[in-house]
Amino acid sequence: MSVEQKLAARGLALPTAPQPLGAYKAVVESQGMLYISAQVPIRDGKVVFQGRVGVDLTLEQGQQAAELTALNALAQIHRYLGDFDRLVRIVRVEGHVASADGFFDQPKVIDGASNLYADVLGEKAGHVRSAFSHTQLPANSAVVLAVTAEIAPAA
Amino acid sequence: MSVEQKLAARGLALPTAPQPLGAYKAVVESQGMLYISAQVPIRDGKVVFQGRVGVDLTLEQGQQAAELTALNALAQIHRYLGDFDRLVRIVRVEGHVASADGFFDQPKVIDGASNLYADVLGEKAGHVRSAFSHTQLPANSAVVLAVTAEIAPAA
Amino acid sequence: MSVEQKLAARGLALPTAPQPLGAYKAVVESQGMLYISAQVPIRDGKVVFQGRVGVDLTLEQGQQAAELTALNALAQIHRYLGDFDRLVRIVRVEGHVASADGFFDQPKVIDGASNLYADVLGEKAGHVRSAFSHTQLPANSAVVLAVTAEIAPAA
Repeated sequence: MSVEQKLAARGLALPTAPQPLGAYKAVVESQGMLYISAQVPIRDGKVVFQGRVGVDLTLEQGQQAAELTALNALAQIHRYLGDFDRLVRIVRVEGHVASADGFFDQPKVIDGASNLYADVLGEKAGHVRSAFSHTQLPANSAVVLAVTAEIAPAA
Repeated sequence: MSVEQKLAARGLALPTAPQPLGAYKAVVESQGMLYISAQVPIRDGKVVFQGRVGVDLTLEQGQQAAELTALNALAQIHRYLGDFDRLVRIVRVEGHVASADGFFDQPKVIDGASNLYADVLGEKAGHVRSAFSHTQLPANSAVVLAVTAEIAPAA
Repeated sequence: MSVEQKLAARGLALPTAPQPLGAYKAVVESQGMLYISAQVPIRDGKVVFQGRVGVDLTLEQGQQAAELTALNALAQIHRYLGDFDRLVRIVRVEGHVASADGFFDQPKVIDGASNLYADVLGEKAGHVRSAFSHTQLPANSAVVLAVTAEIAPAA
């Protein structure tokens, strides 16, 4: 099954990759790596998961936010490469979670991203990870992810 | 026009690159990349933008802090390479903003860095970006930037 | 002296590298770099430095937390490579410190990691660094470190 078919099996589809809102790039390719600008849980132009996990959002909603954000990063990779053939692996996922005081389960929130990649990318999913807590994030986003991926040379 | 001339046209000049204050390096070159230690809005040895954007500093002052911080990162690149000839591109800018509660415009603050690079580096400016909110930052800095750049092999 | 001997001279030994708790990797190798998942000050399966530096922990305890966390990152490198022969250098240390309001000395906390690397890795220690303040971190950890290292090709 293709990545797109595996997404569909989860009821998901690749969204249109969000465009940068300033003098920077959505994706930069450098020496076999794709660096992707930090993504937020945006859908149809709207940040749909706002506020802090543990007060405004449940853990499960936080995981959904992480999944949507991870999906937007996949959409950036797809838009840049045209497909996923040249994707070697997700190398790094840096996860940031807007969190209630005393909420310490940021890694469980970011599991929403890691599990999506494991399910739809298989062997290409393998990444290292970090998870951080913030009192708030840009645009009042519940989650921000910065993703880096290795790609193969163009054929 | 050279980078230095473009800076001068903005009323700016490359400062002396701040030195590390501990057992680490200002710049590490590794496999065609320059990694630069996190920079702060320091001028003549003093952190000149302190406090939180949205309470102690206006958005515009935050942008000036981001610009000064981005200028210090440029100074690190220049000190390491001797000039900007081998700079291929800025790859990544990670922006951290000390912010008031309820201030969600960290990306607009970091525009102060991105716009500087766009203006003075032209085609070499293109970077991916992240922007985060913190309640405070080291040395009470308003902004911290971590910059990564691709360089060409020495001739 | 080997790295292990230098550690022993400090009264330290390489711990068992902590395993990931989700669908991600402890270490990913990509194009000559080792990316290491964010580490916490864990010992024998328990996070032994919890809370905020400046209120729950002293600066010195924060430095001990950073040292232990840096040691765990070394353990990850050792587990992946089998020894330190192929380690070229530590490239980057991103340090995050759970901090009291008004505590601005995060770099001094992260010195606990940088000084360990300088002492036991010698010429291979040279890294760039960032230091950030958070109100809290996952698992109530006092310190989180994300480490990246360059490695030589397998012989």
